[in-house]
Amino acid sequence: MALQGKKLINNPDDVVTEFIEGLVETYPGLQYLDGFPEIKVVLRADAVGGAYDKVAVISGGGSGHEPAHAGFVGPGMLTAAVSGDVFASPPVDSILAAIRAVTGTMGCLLIIKNYTGDRLNFGLAAEQAKSEGYKIEMVIVGDDCALPPPRGIAGRRGLAGTILVHKVAGAAADAGLSLADVAAEAKHASEAVGTMGVALSVCTLPGQVTSDRLGPEQIELGLGIHGEPGAAVVELQTVDVVVEHVLKQILSQETQYLPITRGSNAVLLINGLGATPVMELMIAARKAVPELQLEYGIAVDRVYTGTFMTSLDMAGLSITIMRSDENILQRLDAPTKAPAWPVGSEGNRPPAKFPVAVPPSPSMKDDEILSERQELSKQGCMLEAAIEAAAKELIDLKDNLNDWDSKVGDGDCGTTMYRGATAILEDMKTRYHLNDAAGTVNEIGSTIRKVMGGTSGILYDILCKAAYASLKQNKNITAYEWADALEASIAAVSKYGGARAGYRTMLDALIPASTVLKQSLKAGDDPVTAFIASAEAASAGAESTKQMQAKLHLQAGRSSYISPDHLVSIPDPGAMAAAAWYQAAALSVKNKLHASES
Amino acid sequence: MALQGKKLINNPDDVVTEFIEGLVETYPGLQYLDGFPEIKVVLRADAVGGAYDKVAVISGGGSGHEPAHAGFVGPGMLTAAVSGDVFASPPVDSILAAIRAVTGTMGCLLIIKNYTGDRLNFGLAAEQAKSEGYKIEMVIVGDDCALPPPRGIAGRRGLAGTILVHKVAGAAADAGLSLADVAAEAKHASEAVGTMGVALSVCTLPGQVTSDRLGPEQIELGLGIHGEPGAAVVELQTVDVVVEHVLKQILSQETQYLPITRGSNAVLLINGLGATPVMELMIAARKAVPELQLEYGIAVDRVYTGTFMTSLDMAGLSITIMRSDENILQRLDAPTKAPAWPVGSEGNRPPAKFPVAVPPSPSMKDDEILSERQELSKQGCMLEAAIEAAAKELIDLKDNLNDWDSKVGDGDCGTTMYRGATAILEDMKTRYHLNDAAGTVNEIGSTIRKVMGGTSGILYDILCKAAYASLKQNKNITAYEWADALEASIAAVSKYGGARAGYRTMLDALIPASTVLKQSLKAGDDPVTAFIASAEAASAGAESTKQMQAKLHLQAGRSSYISPDHLVSIPDPGAMAAAAWYQAAALSVKNKLHASES
Repeated sequence: MALQGKKLINNPDDVVTEFIEGLVETYPGLQYLDGFPEIKVVLRADAVGGAYDKVAVISGGGSGHEPAHAGFVGPGMLTAAVSGDVFASPPVDSILAAIRAVTGTMGCLLIIKNYTGDRLNFGLAAEQAKSEGYKIEMVIVGDDCALPPPRGIAGRRGLAGTILVHKVAGAAADAGLSLADVAAEAKHASEAVGTMGVALSVCTLPGQVTSDRLGPEQIELGLGIHGEPGAAVVELQTVDVVVEHVLKQILSQETQYLPITRGSNAVLLINGLGATPVMELMIAARKAVPELQLEYGIAVDRVYTGTFMTSLDMAGLSITIMRSDENILQRLDAPTKAPAWPVGSEGNRPPAKFPVAVPPSPSMKDDEILSERQELSKQGCMLEAAIEAAAKELIDLKDNLNDWDSKVGDGDCGTTMYRGATAILEDMKTRYHLNDAAGTVNEIGSTIRKVMGGTSGILYDILCKAAYASLKQNKNITAYEWADALEASIAAVSKYGGARAGYRTMLDALIPASTVLKQSLKAGDDPVTAFIASAEAASAGAESTKQMQAKLHLQAGRSSYISPDHLVSIPDPGAMAAAAWYQAAALSVKNKLHASES
Repeated sequence: MALQGKKLINNPDDVVTEFIEGLVETYPGLQYLDGFPEIKVVLRADAVGGAYDKVAVISGGGSGHEPAHAGFVGPGMLTAAVSGDVFASPPVDSILAAIRAVTGTMGCLLIIKNYTGDRLNFGLAAEQAKSEGYKIEMVIVGDDCALPPPRGIAGRRGLAGTILVHKVAGAAADAGLSLADVAAEAKHASEAVGTMGVALSVCTLPGQVTSDRLGPEQIELGLGIHGEPGAAVVELQTVDVVVEHVLKQILSQETQYLPITRGSNAVLLINGLGATPVMELMIAARKAVPELQLEYGIAVDRVYTGTFMTSLDMAGLSITIMRSDENILQRLDAPTKAPAWPVGSEGNRPPAKFPVAVPPSPSMKDDEILSERQELSKQGCMLEAAIEAAAKELIDLKDNLNDWDSKVGDGDCGTTMYRGATAILEDMKTRYHLNDAAGTVNEIGSTIRKVMGGTSGILYDILCKAAYASLKQNKNITAYEWADALEASIAAVSKYGGARAGYRTMLDALIPASTVLKQSLKAGDDPVTAFIASAEAASAGAESTKQMQAKLHLQAGRSSYISPDHLVSIPDPGAMAAAAWYQAAALSVKNKLHASES
């Protein structure tokens, strides 16, 4: 449990001050008030000096609930936020300073969560401000649905539903409404909202030891946001079960906390309590929406999923439901620059989302099986011979490749290549349009990826796809086009695989092959001569890997070096395989041409 | 450590699918692609069907980094995001489906983090798409600055800096640039960005046991985002020291990872790794900005603080620095609807923020000390007598009040009242303008709050402030105005304190007093008769609290009931105190009037 107490802070006494300093550094539109750090008020940089011509909306309370409330200061939401120390109500003087700083002739609405300290401190500041001539109203939010209706003074606690009340009031004020009307909208919203929380861990105050109240397999239901114990401790359950339970409590017909019935519309807010990953919040949203719609007959107009009102580093979430109507939706959708208000949830949700269709591949025909034996052109015959020779060479080389690989890798290079080669021989009979060289190369790539796992399979497919893209630009495919295709293939393999010459990979065979092929053709050599010279360069390149030190393996982050001593005299099996199939193909072309000439 | 393994999920195998479903429920503008859940692609609902007329920008990679990358899909940023399983690269078919779904004639830029799996899978998909006729470019981001320059294939890891590259590319695409130009801007941005992370805890894969790699007092520096061990494990330090260290590494002159020198401009991104409270991120931002500006001479143009690229539930943060120029700032500031891109960081930061001044209180003169003895009016004399009598009564009642309070409360009611009463007698000599009844009441409130702590002090100040605001509306103050002021005071105390009649508070004395005072005056009784009758009602009301059951204490959330048996025959000390000072004041007014009449 000690881990939970770890925090990225300095002096525990300075966390609120330093939070505000960071906030003001981050957002150019936010400003802090004179008297800082004693007076912890964040306000809009553009709404100061008593000249503000709209109703000011101020919230605040104890700290430890970040981004609430300072993160909701901005045009269209709060005009200022007053922070106390962690879980402690701000002093009257701070609240009064905030009121004086931003309140103009239209007056000021205070929105607070229902805690006695906040009620009294904000209340006294309100009365003081009134006595100074300011127009002030206050709305107190008590949205907790976890506990039975209290009989006494305390009332229901204010939780994350307060954020929605902020937004409604802020948008109403921004629309130019009077103080009475803004207060009325905020009050209406506060009476239509309910919240309940679930915690996986107890929050730890800065500089304090973590509570061991909650066992490793337990969660707490209906908790407060100040580390107060929850209404119940239960065994850890799936989030679907948790969401079902929480919605049932919020919408309980016994407590009648919310004026929501079958047929009502509502908005949903899923709120992380401080240390809850976005992934988990979204998984909760995924359950809550259909549960509300299908089980309770409530149309969900908007969904807000994120971290809005926290309890320091508590892991867990709260769910808030607010009955919505056209006016509330208009207020919630109104634009705001408040940094912590969620983006992208505005606007009507489609009743259901049907997945978007994917356009079909233009090369779907490649998947067809050849219906009849094709009549091969001269080029097609040569290609057939080259593929057959290359594949057979790899099959013959299986044990050698495995042997080398067992000394420098995981020992399966031969087996992998064998699998690819036999599949190519098989598919060639039924699937390859051999008269279409480009298409055949493309198909070879697909065959390889189908049967060869791991990095080599995907790299060979990349090699084939790049060659295909290069070849298919031409109607007539000669040695020159093959040379271009080889060059494009090498570039693609190098780009995506990250290897260059000298890295002990297949490129150590193919790069010299490509270079010599281009040089030879450019020098005017006939194609067969050029290919044979190129194949010899491939072999020499592969042999040269015996002298090369291994580079980092492909798996970034899981890399390991192999001792250099281990490698001397062992060639890279991938390079040897590439040289072998390349040379076999070149020789078969030579033989084929000689045969047809003779 | 078992706590760390707790997650709000269902089947661990479904976390990615369910995350995407929740995301699409939350954001009306996001959609998922046919083939879901095998194909995990989130795309803009408005950019489908191959008719998209701008360069499509696609990112993706393994899941577990939420909100990256799906949360950055939206106009002005990503067109689509392709998710793999947790920490696993997405398959080629998913990537290809995303490309086909959103790529129009302008082409598509793939932006990926530098991991071999992503390079190969996105690479093959890119080559396949090219071979199908799509225009594709790819930019690979490797922004990690924690490790020395690698010598081999792997290269530097892609971390949170990728988000800034997304934004630059997305804005460039949105501006209508060609694929080549969008890719060039993305590449330029990727070469100007560096990142390093710090972890307080190791992330836990869904359904797995938490690693105990990190001790309770240790943190990890230079970690990856897939649970890979960090470059170093050190003792927990203050966040200021951590930030200093991380910035030093990122800006190291040895590695020269970033093309940033003294005099450069840069943007700063403080990124939570999944379970880091906003408070801690802001505290880090607070240190990083001046450190960059003052220690390194780098002008910080923008600050982005939030949760962008996580590692499941890891606690910790990463810091990213990107060299900025006018074009990059324009791209970063350009509007976007991508839900996870931060709001409010755009626009030039002021070079320094000077706190906003608070307008002075209009009632500052109240703080003056009276320079000379004032000549009291008849009203002033009566007020002086009433205050003196009320205060002396409370002083006399000290032990009784403490005695009652020791049985039903914390036993200090008498002491607290005594403190207030003696301070009032003291301040009356030097500070109260007794001829100004409203002002005097206001000052009494200030005296009380200065010396009386806790709830009663603040409630009495609220009572006085409300009375002051009521009284000061009138030039002539008669019994009727005092009656109105009492009513207003009670309303304020009830509103902010939450108590009503019957809650065993001072209101049980004051409410009957107010009711009788109003009735008596209305019936035509002379003021003295009315006040005396009202004072008797106050006493009776206070006595009646003996029969009342206690309600919840004022401290919401920390409430406790007191056994009802305990309370019978013990009056509420607060009510008794209120009745006592009220009655003493009423009697003194009666005596004063009689004395002046005789």
